[in-house]
Amino acid sequence: MTAIHCLNGPNLNLLGTREPGIYGAATLADIERDLQERAARLDIALTFRQTNHEGELVSFVQEAGRAGAGVLINAAAYTHTSIALRDAISGTGVTAVEIHLSNVHAREAFRHVSLIAPVCAGVIAGFGPYSYLAGLDALAHLLRGRTPSAS
Amino acid sequence: MTAIHCLNGPNLNLLGTREPGIYGAATLADIERDLQERAARLDIALTFRQTNHEGELVSFVQEAGRAGAGVLINAAAYTHTSIALRDAISGTGVTAVEIHLSNVHAREAFRHVSLIAPVCAGVIAGFGPYSYLAGLDALAHLLRGRTPSAS
Amino acid sequence: MTAIHCLNGPNLNLLGTREPGIYGAATLADIERDLQERAARLDIALTFRQTNHEGELVSFVQEAGRAGAGVLINAAAYTHTSIALRDAISGTGVTAVEIHLSNVHAREAFRHVSLIAPVCAGVIAGFGPYSYLAGLDALAHLLRGRTPSAS
Amino acid sequence: MTAIHCLNGPNLNLLGTREPGIYGAATLADIERDLQERAARLDIALTFRQTNHEGELVSFVQEAGRAGAGVLINAAAYTHTSIALRDAISGTGVTAVEIHLSNVHAREAFRHVSLIAPVCAGVIAGFGPYSYLAGLDALAHLLRGRTPSAS
Amino acid sequence: MTAIHCLNGPNLNLLGTREPGIYGAATLADIERDLQERAARLDIALTFRQTNHEGELVSFVQEAGRAGAGVLINAAAYTHTSIALRDAISGTGVTAVEIHLSNVHAREAFRHVSLIAPVCAGVIAGFGPYSYLAGLDALAHLLRGRTPSAS
Amino acid sequence: MTAIHCLNGPNLNLLGTREPGIYGAATLADIERDLQERAARLDIALTFRQTNHEGELVSFVQEAGRAGAGVLINAAAYTHTSIALRDAISGTGVTAVEIHLSNVHAREAFRHVSLIAPVCAGVIAGFGPYSYLAGLDALAHLLRGRTPSAS
Amino acid sequence: MTAIHCLNGPNLNLLGTREPGIYGAATLADIERDLQERAARLDIALTFRQTNHEGELVSFVQEAGRAGAGVLINAAAYTHTSIALRDAISGTGVTAVEIHLSNVHAREAFRHVSLIAPVCAGVIAGFGPYSYLAGLDALAHLLRGRTPSAS
Amino acid sequence: MTAIHCLNGPNLNLLGTREPGIYGAATLADIERDLQERAARLDIALTFRQTNHEGELVSFVQEAGRAGAGVLINAAAYTHTSIALRDAISGTGVTAVEIHLSNVHAREAFRHVSLIAPVCAGVIAGFGPYSYLAGLDALAHLLRGRTPSAS
Amino acid sequence: MTAIHCLNGPNLNLLGTREPGIYGAATLADIERDLQERAARLDIALTFRQTNHEGELVSFVQEAGRAGAGVLINAAAYTHTSIALRDAISGTGVTAVEIHLSNVHAREAFRHVSLIAPVCAGVIAGFGPYSYLAGLDALAHLLRGRTPSAS
Amino acid sequence: MTAIHCLNGPNLNLLGTREPGIYGAATLADIERDLQERAARLDIALTFRQTNHEGELVSFVQEAGRAGAGVLINAAAYTHTSIALRDAISGTGVTAVEIHLSNVHAREAFRHVSLIAPVCAGVIAGFGPYSYLAGLDALAHLLRGRTPSAS
Amino acid sequence: MTAIHCLNGPNLNLLGTREPGIYGAATLADIERDLQERAARLDIALTFRQTNHEGELVSFVQEAGRAGAGVLINAAAYTHTSIALRDAISGTGVTAVEIHLSNVHAREAFRHVSLIAPVCAGVIAGFGPYSYLAGLDALAHLLRGRTPSAS
Amino acid sequence: MTAIHCLNGPNLNLLGTREPGIYGAATLADIERDLQERAARLDIALTFRQTNHEGELVSFVQEAGRAGAGVLINAAAYTHTSIALRDAISGTGVTAVEIHLSNVHAREAFRHVSLIAPVCAGVIAGFGPYSYLAGLDALAHLLRGRTPSAS
Repeated sequence: MTAIHCLNGPNLNLLGTREPGIYGAATLADIERDLQERAARLDIALTFRQTNHEGELVSFVQEAGRAGAGVLINAAAYTHTSIALRDAISGTGVTAVEIHLSNVHAREAFRHVSLIAPVCAGVIAGFGPYSYLAGLDALAHLLRGRTPSAS
Repeated sequence: MTAIHCLNGPNLNLLGTREPGIYGAATLADIERDLQERAARLDIALTFRQTNHEGELVSFVQEAGRAGAGVLINAAAYTHTSIALRDAISGTGVTAVEIHLSNVHAREAFRHVSLIAPVCAGVIAGFGPYSYLAGLDALAHLLRGRTPSAS
Repeated sequence: MTAIHCLNGPNLNLLGTREPGIYGAATLADIERDLQERAARLDIALTFRQTNHEGELVSFVQEAGRAGAGVLINAAAYTHTSIALRDAISGTGVTAVEIHLSNVHAREAFRHVSLIAPVCAGVIAGFGPYSYLAGLDALAHLLRGRTPSAS
Repeated sequence: MTAIHCLNGPNLNLLGTREPGIYGAATLADIERDLQERAARLDIALTFRQTNHEGELVSFVQEAGRAGAGVLINAAAYTHTSIALRDAISGTGVTAVEIHLSNVHAREAFRHVSLIAPVCAGVIAGFGPYSYLAGLDALAHLLRGRTPSAS
Repeated sequence: MTAIHCLNGPNLNLLGTREPGIYGAATLADIERDLQERAARLDIALTFRQTNHEGELVSFVQEAGRAGAGVLINAAAYTHTSIALRDAISGTGVTAVEIHLSNVHAREAFRHVSLIAPVCAGVIAGFGPYSYLAGLDALAHLLRGRTPSAS
Repeated sequence: MTAIHCLNGPNLNLLGTREPGIYGAATLADIERDLQERAARLDIALTFRQTNHEGELVSFVQEAGRAGAGVLINAAAYTHTSIALRDAISGTGVTAVEIHLSNVHAREAFRHVSLIAPVCAGVIAGFGPYSYLAGLDALAHLLRGRTPSAS
Repeated sequence: MTAIHCLNGPNLNLLGTREPGIYGAATLADIERDLQERAARLDIALTFRQTNHEGELVSFVQEAGRAGAGVLINAAAYTHTSIALRDAISGTGVTAVEIHLSNVHAREAFRHVSLIAPVCAGVIAGFGPYSYLAGLDALAHLLRGRTPSAS
Repeated sequence: MTAIHCLNGPNLNLLGTREPGIYGAATLADIERDLQERAARLDIALTFRQTNHEGELVSFVQEAGRAGAGVLINAAAYTHTSIALRDAISGTGVTAVEIHLSNVHAREAFRHVSLIAPVCAGVIAGFGPYSYLAGLDALAHLLRGRTPSAS
Repeated sequence: MTAIHCLNGPNLNLLGTREPGIYGAATLADIERDLQERAARLDIALTFRQTNHEGELVSFVQEAGRAGAGVLINAAAYTHTSIALRDAISGTGVTAVEIHLSNVHAREAFRHVSLIAPVCAGVIAGFGPYSYLAGLDALAHLLRGRTPSAS
Repeated sequence: MTAIHCLNGPNLNLLGTREPGIYGAATLADIERDLQERAARLDIALTFRQTNHEGELVSFVQEAGRAGAGVLINAAAYTHTSIALRDAISGTGVTAVEIHLSNVHAREAFRHVSLIAPVCAGVIAGFGPYSYLAGLDALAHLLRGRTPSAS
Repeated sequence: MTAIHCLNGPNLNLLGTREPGIYGAATLADIERDLQERAARLDIALTFRQTNHEGELVSFVQEAGRAGAGVLINAAAYTHTSIALRDAISGTGVTAVEIHLSNVHAREAFRHVSLIAPVCAGVIAGFGPYSYLAGLDALAHLLRGRTPSAS
Repeated sequence: MTAIHCLNGPNLNLLGTREPGIYGAATLADIERDLQERAARLDIALTFRQTNHEGELVSFVQEAGRAGAGVLINAAAYTHTSIALRDAISGTGVTAVEIHLSNVHAREAFRHVSLIAPVCAGVIAGFGPYSYLAGLDALAHLLRGRTPSAS
């Protein structure tokens, strides 16, 4: 059975409580529920985690690596500042897909650069909670070598 | 019925003939066929076009705007150099999703900056031909306000 | 009789339909009509053209050069990216006046640099459709060596 | 009656005496005379001032603001260095038009950036003394909402 | 028989009519005639084309690729701005030699960077029309693996 | 009789012994022999020198200047760091052609800038040892005002 | 009763033991004691915390947000590197005042940029332990809409 | 008796009349009155001055230096452009506190750099008119070596 | 007895399992064993620790400072991003030696800058696990003022 | 009789009272006295002025221009920020020599760039009050076309 | 028998006579003596050379290459400016270790970049004369594939 | 008796033969003769040397240091590229005065930065051969602590 670890970075636990203009009204729990549902339908074992700590995010990636799982990662702020996270992804050799709720390219300039994108397989950004679903589909596609059906 | 124009920029007509290490073995015709199939299943009227001309790409976006269609765009090299394309997207107000076959962030530095991303709704990159399918799903999701089923 | 070619770049055909906050409600046809009227009063033969193609804009400048006409040019996005256009102006030796509807200096940073300004005689920006009229007056002034009357 | 303050920055009192290759042979008094004439014909009350002091130029803008006048400003060197002048224009809320005798974009790189342009309504540069006349017309157009006749 | 496509970018059709100080007095037709002569002596089938359009230049390169021809290219202004052209050269895998009439390194800073040079085999610049002849020799040398005789 | 000094900078004495992937298998002696042969056929008196010293390269240029010779120069690393060499070329007024074995634009960024190119007549790079032959032809063309025959 | 969380970043637990030339002789405990005293007089419930962990500092801000408290923050090194902290402040919507013991602008260049300042209400730096007291007063002023008395 | 000169830079005389969104509704006279009151309670002789001239601000600092007074300075726009002011502060050796009404770090990038901060003792920004009161307290603290009471 | 704390940053726990081309086949346990052996021979009490957390690395340095130990530090990714770590080293005043397994200067540009090097005594990089042994020797040399014998 | 105006910028009136480590113990009056003495011996009519105002310095240069005098200028801080001063020197066409007491190149980076040096004849810096004497000699040499005797 | 060439760049012959604060009191002869001693114990044939000439340093590296020796190099100033030296190391393929007496990262910014580090095996800096000993050990370790004993 | 070594860098041996527009008609021998004359009158033992080699210039400075002489240096191109020369001046502790014939600030941007100026006592530039005489006077003034008489 395909395993995927969905890893969430700092402040994503605040989702749904503030700045709905940027991030929407869904909570992280809402997102996890929808994602688990879709994972079930795709026959994927999904682990879903959040942390505010860069070091913990590094450890989560390493755990995914040891578990042979793919990584669906919304590193939030650490996307732009963490070489440690980049090294975790390249060092473990996990297949990773970077996702973002908002369109980072339409925000502050420091959000336009991703330190982890070059070691991820692909990037999906700007679709709100749907970015998670699309990311799951895409990661499943990469891990299994076939495309999830559209209907 | 939802309309989507899938617009392809310069050199994408070369797909499948050269540099499979970067772009894969599928031709643009292969991609169109798979995309039309998926569009049909999603009940979407898909127009699929390619051009090597920046100005024509601008005109294609304007036509999509007049047709009330969403835009799925792989602007290739013009992604990084065309303010005209950016102005076409913002000037027509179309809902656009930017896609790329390769992970542009893992390539030359000049491919890390997208001039059109800030005026697109979202970005999907790095999944080969599957980027088109994922982009279609995501754009349909945005235009219809509901998520395509995963199976 | 003095000849002036008024050349318009990409997306200016969209005028009046979108983003009135930036560009105003007048269409390009409205602008042309007012400009033809003023040209008539100033005894100027006015040619008015628009294109989305950089290469065509280059050719338009060359045609103006061959016709011995002055150039009133709103290159829109190509203002900031086209060395080819710059080379056309300096290569033909036409007297050119650069105009803009909006105040480009109050917008995104990439609109603050004009590649063609250094080879134009002068620049007028920020007055909406009136920029065209002021540009016509100024270009006539340059070509004829006398100032259009103010009333 | 519409009031306009034409404000001139450092070294413009030297006009006509040196560097005619760049600035032409007209003195500032010549320019003022022609401008007063045109203002009279346009029924505009014109105040014309020159100073070498940045602080005085700031005060002149404030006076224009208190007088409810529009500002036609050739800030010369302070165009490129004075945030104080920028703050005076935005702080008083005057409608301002920035003018230059020479085409600043064809000169040294440090003259390509204007600190005041983003808070002015528009910019006119490169037409010699005619820049003042064109600027007066354009400012009148902005203040009155109608276009000065061309003949 | 060895085939070479000599491709010329924007404004090169102006050659011989303006700016002889930079580009010399020869017209593009003069250059083509001399180049055809030399090609004939070298037993090379030469195709000679010019366009002001970036997209057309891209298409010309693709045609050369399909024809199995080498590419002798003076991309003029597009040398410095066109990633699309670069992608055409690397995407088709043609053997290309970049040429320039003038010594681009002795001109404006924006002409010092070539986006296509890294995907060309070599570069020749600064010899006026002779750059074309030298480029033909060099390209023939690359395609045939032997050196054209000097006399 | 036309005189040409072919000057070679640091590490070119290593040619043929290392890094054939970048520089080819020919030694500097091989290159000199072929170049002398071609010079003889072109009736050119060729002096061929190599040094690892920047100062000596400067002196070599000065000697060429005193001898009234043209300069064919592969300054290797000093191409990118030596203002002294640039001053020698402009200070002596020699006609110089800059050559490189490899395509410097396809290598590290610090090799993309040439300090001597702006004071040379032209540049030829990327053709391996053939760059020397093409450079000789081009320099002869410049010094004599006629083109070496292609066969 | 007004609640304020005073949050201290990495290495502030070293205060008073090293580098008194930069940070003074007071320990963090000394600072807390004086601050608690002043808070008591101002009728403020003060929570005082220190951590070396970026992630924990993020969590502290979130806790302050949930508690409806204002934030007095000396983020030390994370001031200059933590986008996560910035997102925590803007994401929770807390009213925050940034403080520093030393005058960061008189130190290394990398300390001149604060990533959190743009989302704080204000900044106080350079007064040693007094920065904490001044920050408390200022934050109280913001939260209560009235100024603490000076004597 | 402790003496403090509160020095105000360009356009601060406009306070209360425009841009209340950025600077609040208080006039500079309001601020002076409140500051004089607090100074009286703290037994400080306060001199309060405003000027639009950089040179005069320099002279004011020199006068403060001769009077042995501390300097509370809101240099407004000159904060970001005046090396002369910086030299005045360091040259006289006055103890200076830099203040700002608005949070300069949340505004345009050119307001993020202060040329005078490195030679001031400390900085306070973002608290509106209260910045003056907090600055007075902090400066008094520095000059007297004891902390003003909070109630 | 001399005490040394060898501190290891993020992802070093992955050593030996991945990317042997960059980091070699030895595990961190192998390195510790060899280092303990050498420490024993040099009569040094060695503490060996690894963490993925920046904050914990900061705390480790502080503990070394309290223990009066020297610090041998391979901060891995935090070398390039952590001002907090730099402040810990300078704030505690420990004698520190920075080590790296790989030659960081031969890798990505962002690995060429070390934020901690300026506050370390010295740097050793590029020798694989031997960097640890050489670092131990060098640190012992610094702490004891004499050189470990080579045989 | 040769006339020279020695113009001094902001804060030079502080000389001798503060920062003797940088500027020495001589007052500006001391410098003027020594300079007048030397001018007398050289038969030069010397005018000596100081101002803290940029605008006044501009006016001083203009007066020198009207008087046909050479300009010996220590613009102090305005050296690095005043385009107006540069324009005054180039606009009046005066022969100017830039002097500095300290070696500006050994101080802060922002003092390494002089905006007026490119329009001055020469620069002398770093010799303390002797810079004035050397500047006088050099300016006399330029104005008279002969060298002042050394003894 | 293993051969190592220790090569020293410009001004290292001054060691021990000046700036002991930066470089220590040992002369280069002292360093050579200690290094020869250690080399003897390690059974290494050591050649020790110094030159002020970049070109000679290049030649020294080439000689080491021809002799099959490893290179222990303190290139001093040429570390930061010599591409020629870099090319010599990569062109000869010698195994090189870069050493520095001082911690270059704690000095001027232009000393933070090494042009030769990317082509050396490793770097050791900051340990004074001990850097030479540590470098010898490390180079021996690389050349022999075993670690010198610590006692 | 005071000793001064006047050291001249690359291409200064060309003086008087080329580019008189920039460097004047005097040869280096002319300059030496005039300088020796003035030195004799000032009772200074002058050594005058020229070299095209950076390394030799370094050695010349070292010799001046050993001889206890002051250094009058026109390093020409090496002014802008030689850290080795800078280290020679600071490493020997000689008192040095940097001179230039031309006003380097009015030439190419790469001539605006001097690597040696920060370690020289002062700089004199722009006065042609007179720069040498003024430099001699200034250096004598520094070495003897008194000013050469002007007549």
